[in-house]
Amino acid sequence: MGEDCREFGESTKMKEKMEEVEREEEIDPESNPVNEPLLKRNRTLSSNPLALVGEKVSYIESLDYEINENDLFKHDWRSRSRVQVLQYIFLKWLLAFLVGLLTGIIATLINLAIENIAGYKLLAVLKYIHRERYLTGFLYFTGINFILTFVAAILCVCFAPTAAGPGIPEIKAYLNGVDTPNMFGATTLIVKIIGSIGAVSAGLDLGKEGPLVHIGSCIASLLGQGGPDNYRIKWRWLRYFNNDRDRRDLITCGSSSGVCAAFRAPVGGVLFALEEVATWWRSALLWRTFFSTAVVVVILRAFIEICNSGKCGLFGEGGLIMFDVSNVTVRYHVMDIVIVVVIGIIGGVLGSLYNHVLHKILRLYNLINQKGKIHKLLLSLAVALFTSMCQYGLPFLAKCTPCDSSIPESACPTNGRSGNFKQFNCPPGYYNDLATLLLTTNDDAVRNIFSTNTPQEYQPMSLLIFFVLYCILGLITFGIAVPSGLFLPIILMGSGYGRLLGLYMGPHTNIDQGLFAVLGAASLMAGSMRMTVSLCVIFLELTNNLLLLPITMIVLLIAKTVGDSFNPSIYEIILHLKGLPFMDANPEPWMRNLTVGELVDVKPSVVTLQGIEKVSKIVDVLKNNAHNGFPVLGDGGVAVPPVVGQANGATELHGLVLRAHLIQALKKKWFFKERRRTMDWEVREKFTWVELAEREGSIEGVAVTSEEMEMFVDLHPLTNTTPFTVLESMSVAKAMILFRQVGIRHLLVVPKYQASGVSPVIGILTRQDLLAHNILTVFPHLAKSKSRGKRN
Amino acid sequence: MGEDCREFGESTKMKEKMEEVEREEEIDPESNPVNEPLLKRNRTLSSNPLALVGEKVSYIESLDYEINENDLFKHDWRSRSRVQVLQYIFLKWLLAFLVGLLTGIIATLINLAIENIAGYKLLAVLKYIHRERYLTGFLYFTGINFILTFVAAILCVCFAPTAAGPGIPEIKAYLNGVDTPNMFGATTLIVKIIGSIGAVSAGLDLGKEGPLVHIGSCIASLLGQGGPDNYRIKWRWLRYFNNDRDRRDLITCGSSSGVCAAFRAPVGGVLFALEEVATWWRSALLWRTFFSTAVVVVILRAFIEICNSGKCGLFGEGGLIMFDVSNVTVRYHVMDIVIVVVIGIIGGVLGSLYNHVLHKILRLYNLINQKGKIHKLLLSLAVALFTSMCQYGLPFLAKCTPCDSSIPESACPTNGRSGNFKQFNCPPGYYNDLATLLLTTNDDAVRNIFSTNTPQEYQPMSLLIFFVLYCILGLITFGIAVPSGLFLPIILMGSGYGRLLGLYMGPHTNIDQGLFAVLGAASLMAGSMRMTVSLCVIFLELTNNLLLLPITMIVLLIAKTVGDSFNPSIYEIILHLKGLPFMDANPEPWMRNLTVGELVDVKPSVVTLQGIEKVSKIVDVLKNNAHNGFPVLGDGGVAVPPVVGQANGATELHGLVLRAHLIQALKKKWFFKERRRTMDWEVREKFTWVELAEREGSIEGVAVTSEEMEMFVDLHPLTNTTPFTVLESMSVAKAMILFRQVGIRHLLVVPKYQASGVSPVIGILTRQDLLAHNILTVFPHLAKSKSRGKRN
Repeated sequence: MGEDCREFGESTKMKEKMEEVEREEEIDPESNPVNEPLLKRNRTLSSNPLALVGEKVSYIESLDYEINENDLFKHDWRSRSRVQVLQYIFLKWLLAFLVGLLTGIIATLINLAIENIAGYKLLAVLKYIHRERYLTGFLYFTGINFILTFVAAILCVCFAPTAAGPGIPEIKAYLNGVDTPNMFGATTLIVKIIGSIGAVSAGLDLGKEGPLVHIGSCIASLLGQGGPDNYRIKWRWLRYFNNDRDRRDLITCGSSSGVCAAFRAPVGGVLFALEEVATWWRSALLWRTFFSTAVVVVILRAFIEICNSGKCGLFGEGGLIMFDVSNVTVRYHVMDIVIVVVIGIIGGVLGSLYNHVLHKILRLYNLINQKGKIHKLLLSLAVALFTSMCQYGLPFLAKCTPCDSSIPESACPTNGRSGNFKQFNCPPGYYNDLATLLLTTNDDAVRNIFSTNTPQEYQPMSLLIFFVLYCILGLITFGIAVPSGLFLPIILMGSGYGRLLGLYMGPHTNIDQGLFAVLGAASLMAGSMRMTVSLCVIFLELTNNLLLLPITMIVLLIAKTVGDSFNPSIYEIILHLKGLPFMDANPEPWMRNLTVGELVDVKPSVVTLQGIEKVSKIVDVLKNNAHNGFPVLGDGGVAVPPVVGQANGATELHGLVLRAHLIQALKKKWFFKERRRTMDWEVREKFTWVELAEREGSIEGVAVTSEEMEMFVDLHPLTNTTPFTVLESMSVAKAMILFRQVGIRHLLVVPKYQASGVSPVIGILTRQDLLAHNILTVFPHLAKSKSRGKRN
Repeated sequence: MGEDCREFGESTKMKEKMEEVEREEEIDPESNPVNEPLLKRNRTLSSNPLALVGEKVSYIESLDYEINENDLFKHDWRSRSRVQVLQYIFLKWLLAFLVGLLTGIIATLINLAIENIAGYKLLAVLKYIHRERYLTGFLYFTGINFILTFVAAILCVCFAPTAAGPGIPEIKAYLNGVDTPNMFGATTLIVKIIGSIGAVSAGLDLGKEGPLVHIGSCIASLLGQGGPDNYRIKWRWLRYFNNDRDRRDLITCGSSSGVCAAFRAPVGGVLFALEEVATWWRSALLWRTFFSTAVVVVILRAFIEICNSGKCGLFGEGGLIMFDVSNVTVRYHVMDIVIVVVIGIIGGVLGSLYNHVLHKILRLYNLINQKGKIHKLLLSLAVALFTSMCQYGLPFLAKCTPCDSSIPESACPTNGRSGNFKQFNCPPGYYNDLATLLLTTNDDAVRNIFSTNTPQEYQPMSLLIFFVLYCILGLITFGIAVPSGLFLPIILMGSGYGRLLGLYMGPHTNIDQGLFAVLGAASLMAGSMRMTVSLCVIFLELTNNLLLLPITMIVLLIAKTVGDSFNPSIYEIILHLKGLPFMDANPEPWMRNLTVGELVDVKPSVVTLQGIEKVSKIVDVLKNNAHNGFPVLGDGGVAVPPVVGQANGATELHGLVLRAHLIQALKKKWFFKERRRTMDWEVREKFTWVELAEREGSIEGVAVTSEEMEMFVDLHPLTNTTPFTVLESMSVAKAMILFRQVGIRHLLVVPKYQASGVSPVIGILTRQDLLAHNILTVFPHLAKSKSRGKRN
């Protein structure tokens, strides 16, 4: 029954593209078998066999962050009035505000839903246990979790496969310039919200943090384009936002709002986006992002105020600080630094080990998920069942502990949903420490294990069981087909071994056990995710203990250093698994030994167009090529070029024309009988820059009569006259730095020789051409020097 | 007597350069009067008449962050062993560690010195007042302050003029690629340390924060180059650091260590460097900077631990949090948001007003300072006298306030150095609230005005006097010839009006008066300095009250927005005053309407060299040009070019050779009788890349015989074969983005036409050519579209 549910929304568009790709792949080798390129572009996600849940083999496009300076743009630029500029600025801030507002509201609603669903579920279960109806309790607990997981999984599997997982790697790739398919649709947003509520309420070992980042980005993307793909508002003001640059900025705002909403950490959110997610960053963006997170935090604060008066059901405990440990004074001496270093090292080792094993498991899961939707669903449900059984069953292994007499009777044992001393199956006056950690929501579990000034609360055995269980769950849960964040599982695992270490170190140190748990969590986060400053601030904002900062910093630095010496960060591993063509910040060392000239030599020769080109040539080029940009050559102002259609008559590099603009020209029938340059006003009558901002459209939808085929198109006004260029002698390393720093899509390679008859452009490089992996397949000898490590 | 003290250290080198410049300016117009460029480069600081104290008319060089890929570099790169790479990485971290360590130690020593000098001074003064010997007290107070200021000023005036002021704008310019002269010498460092101690202990209205940033950067620079200019350690490992890129990274570490040491704010330090100081930023650098600040904070923490046991004289109170306000619970309702918005608006208006007036005063001061060293000195001393008189005299205007009975007698009135209720001239049981604010160190003044839960402490009149006095002092003190930071004066001013507002708003709000003072300070900082995230984190780390974060964010955002609508940030104003060619992040809108081709047309035609060039030509070119890079043209592999010395025989753009490398070639007599290409081993025998990394040396020191003049130099192996190029049709806006993003010094302009006889390079652009101000002098008509505002 999972098989016959249909796919909605963006999937039709995707199918079209898929067909296009297949067709081209059929055409390409036949029409031009000799000229087959050595350097192949991965038009589809390269890791088809490795693709994760939710990922489909699909056409990957690059984004275009370059300002396309053609005549129309320039004219529009000049004619843009002061009012329009103010409109644009106002809208930019309005959208940043709306992103914050909506993310804040949705995050609160998700929290509200989760706390209430999970809360009433747990209250009911505890009631059964209190009446010693253990089996009924078990069935109730497992059944509800099963249903919740089923809802989350079926939505993901059927409607929005991209909503599974955290979404952060894809957003990272998007902000790097990869147009990750189907990531920011309305369906994805809705499935992510409902799926996240279901999965977290089901008690699965996953967080709502990653999904919230994705939700924030979806909101930003939808706002920026004026609504879902099929129902976009054609608001006049929004047209300024119909470009990849502004959308990128908005999505950056969205992702930091998401982090802010997840951890109630406004500064941490900004820094997370800055350190981990974004590739490009400007001071102006820092400020706008900060504004968005400020809005989020004000919204959260307002909701907390409202809920404190008891109007939100079981939600409402806890303020703006999620895991407050500020009630303990941090004292440490020089000797404690040793312990701190040890925590850091353990965190680094465990973190990289976690990355390694998770990688293997994701590969294994992929084999299962590939078999079909039913398999995906069954896998998710199996994991949910296992989780429920462990969470319910394991606490029976723990011994009951008598309550400390210093604690008031109302606090120990607790029978409510949240509380530090769960009675579970124990007699009055006793509590079950393992139930305190397992039979609760994940947030509460973290709160309980971080609890300070309670050195006697947990038994070593319980902590060990907790740690081992969450290691297993953390590994097997992440890859299933539900929205899942990585933060909380890692925090739970890390706090487990941290507190365990604190228990044993207790007599030798001044540091509280709760702080050990915090440090353990921080170390594992750094060991797996490899962030520093942003994690530091997030932990500061989570725990509200500024005096902990120096040791947190040490732990994070050591854990990251240790982890980095084993393997890359978890997000990089996932990016690689998904086959997203992410461009690294640092070129590989061997890239210095290769020039772009050598690189374009192994590609098929570049397809160029004339400034005034025949319609038939354009149609031919568009049909036989998947390229997105074509260099336009000219004769330098002479009205009629000497020989029709022959490139060597032309000696001027006029610029670069985009595929989308060629299609627009064909669609709009921008044809002339004679071969002539057009006037400015002619172009402006025919095209508006708003139309040119649209990147949609395929050559298939264009009908050209045979009469029109013989006519001419004046490409000059549509051509971006200021493409970025490099000399053929430029090293690949430097070209890559240029490519990434400036954020471009097409890099033209020009000859270093000056002579007649030489084409002024000898090649064109795109993202795929500059990826280390693709270059190494053609120049394998370069790989041997690869081991020497990056120079950063 | 100020006049005849000599200048030491780097000044001789500078004079040489000055002479060189003058000489060239004599030669240039005569030898080539027709070809005089329209687009003039400012070889000297452009704002000679406006130069601030400590700034001298001097030769400005650009820094070169590009990797100079010539044959030698490439060979070295290939042959660099794994051990050497590890050496390099290890050293990078070791230096980051040392920067943190030394900055931490020096900052602690400065604090120690200031607290003790100022502390014993104040104790003595209070003793005189207690005995009602007011005149003696006054003379003692003024006398000591006079001497301290004198020491600080005489050092700055005579030995290191660049040590005056905060130093942050110059560091900002340095990290932008401007080689600000004499900024990072050992003399500057020492003068800055002693001067800062003197000026702050003298009770002048300035902070040690800016100077600490400069001190951190100096330490970084000196460590990176292995010691002071004349006594550099020639450690083999250090040679890897002899380049502008690595020095830039190290100085970034230094500046964030400085901020961290100043505010005990490790994360704030990193963010300050990121948001305000640095132009280029990479994730790897974020991590290293974070490491440095972690070291600083551990050092500070260790010293505080030691000093708590009373071994540091009067130093030792207060922990890692400088201005702790965490003892108050933050409560606010929707209505309080209105007040918060008002504070933000006032902060923005006052901040921009402050910037405006300070600008005028700095111009006025400059006229005084230009008259000579004596005038500089007298100005400083006059300000010191005025400050002392006000600080001592004004508290007599305040009425004595009876101590609150709820406060223990030991706390009110206090007679010690620090304390919230100064007795001053009051009878027992009474305190003088204005003396509490004025007759104390600046740090204590901030602590006192931030004090929470003391709503009755200050009278409105006292706060008003305090605010007005510090407005005046803040304006007149900054420009004098001592090391002076801007942070503390602004905090003092802002807290004054904040608390005053709190006093009047008291009945209508839940927010504590101390928090009003904090918010006032934050708003004025944002209104004047225009930072957001970093200020937010710095304030968080200063005050340790996380719950204040949301309202701090709102205040900062509003104040910055309001301020930005009036004038640029204070640092930008100073940068402009100093005439440093700082390159903005965003191009001006009119830059889109100008191509680089048009720009190079108004410059003198580019000077090119042949791949194998005659010695006489090279000597000639070096003597008649101040350029730092020359395009090298080649014939594309043919050994002997057709016509000697004629550029149009060459058709290949081989690359760019640096002036320093040409001088090296001449010095090393890299001459050949015949016109031939050399072998790899020949070059490597003659040059090492360590020598080529040196950028020193002038053509004057090179002796070439007339016989040698007729010989040839093979420039190929010394040429950077991968310079960045742009097409002549590129718009200046895009070229500027490329220039700044990639961090280059020379941008070659290549023709878009392909034909024989056309030179493959038509121009060369440098930082000065791309500055808006310089372009507008040549193309004034572009300015009219300037008013349309930047698009960011």
